[in-house]
Amino acid sequence: MSTALVVLAHPSPGSLNHAVAAAIERGFRDSGLDVRMHDLYQEGFDPLLSAAELDVTRSPVEIYAGTDDPLVREHRDHLSDASVLAIVHPNWWGKPPAMMSGWIDRVLVPGVAYELDDPVGLPTTLLNLRSLYVVNTSDTTAERELALFGDPLRTIWQRCIGSFLGEPPFERRVLRTVSDSDAGARREWLDEVAADAHRIGESARAAYGG
Amino acid sequence: MSTALVVLAHPSPGSLNHAVAAAIERGFRDSGLDVRMHDLYQEGFDPLLSAAELDVTRSPVEIYAGTDDPLVREHRDHLSDASVLAIVHPNWWGKPPAMMSGWIDRVLVPGVAYELDDPVGLPTTLLNLRSLYVVNTSDTTAERELALFGDPLRTIWQRCIGSFLGEPPFERRVLRTVSDSDAGARREWLDEVAADAHRIGESARAAYGG
Repeated sequence: MSTALVVLAHPSPGSLNHAVAAAIERGFRDSGLDVRMHDLYQEGFDPLLSAAELDVTRSPVEIYAGTDDPLVREHRDHLSDASVLAIVHPNWWGKPPAMMSGWIDRVLVPGVAYELDDPVGLPTTLLNLRSLYVVNTSDTTAERELALFGDPLRTIWQRCIGSFLGEPPFERRVLRTVSDSDAGARREWLDEVAADAHRIGESARAAYGG
Repeated sequence: MSTALVVLAHPSPGSLNHAVAAAIERGFRDSGLDVRMHDLYQEGFDPLLSAAELDVTRSPVEIYAGTDDPLVREHRDHLSDASVLAIVHPNWWGKPPAMMSGWIDRVLVPGVAYELDDPVGLPTTLLNLRSLYVVNTSDTTAERELALFGDPLRTIWQRCIGSFLGEPPFERRVLRTVSDSDAGARREWLDEVAADAHRIGESARAAYGG
């Protein structure tokens, strides 16, 4: 069965990010996907790559290389199983929050996400992703983001990370500006991401023969 | 007296990043600056912004808003005192490691680094930085970085963060590629960053009348 992995990083349980992740989960389920949802703050995920883990991941041999953290092992397993990866977090400083940054550092390692023949070479993915779907919240207007900052967060997910995950079809939605949004705007955003997830889920299932 | 704040994030005590931070510290001291050095892994810095801390930092009133973590308070104090900020970390996925990401999230908050009149508006800095100096290590060649990725990490420090810190003069050195570098190349890198720090330190002291 096709499975989707949803990874969420926001410290406040009542946040818009949490509502977005729930809407994505619903959209995926409605499309017939099996869904694994990980709320990193709620799970107490440890975002810090240790020296020992870093050393081993430089010359990886297997999926659990360098870690005996059971939660990290579970995340690596779920990523390996996934045909769809959905990521939800706020844009803080043009980068993911530390929690999501640590998920990237500890889960997207060689031996799990990709192989490298040499340490400065090009990656071959070990995953089977049909879709990478990223939803970010932001308090920067689209005009200011592009004029001043150039949206480094998109580059990180689509290019820096996507190229190590086999360049799956990439979709991203930025919900902005959050601080001055009203209930109607938020409801509309949630409907949009649920519809995205439903469409992405149907497409992933079709690719696997339903 | 002019002071420099040096912030380092790398999990391995014997890393090139550690040697770089030590070389920067030496260059600053030789120029006559007072230096505060923070090795975030060694200090056990907690990178996770909590829900309570996030809520308060949205409408800040003072430098310790939202946190009673003594280490975070110390970092905020040291940043407020600094005329030079030097940052040292590897480039992981076009972003800082989770540890440095969390330093950004918890220390560069409104009430400390900047003020915002409205949450989607433009910042006014509260700092007195004469220089922002960033050194990153990388295993991606310069050609590949620019062709494939566009160097989002530079954008994060120079534009996304620099614009909230008063746009201090920005310098960055990327040491690459590390994995296949020899002892001679590393020695040369360390001499270069020490010379950068000495020059930056002298300039900062001159700006304050020595």
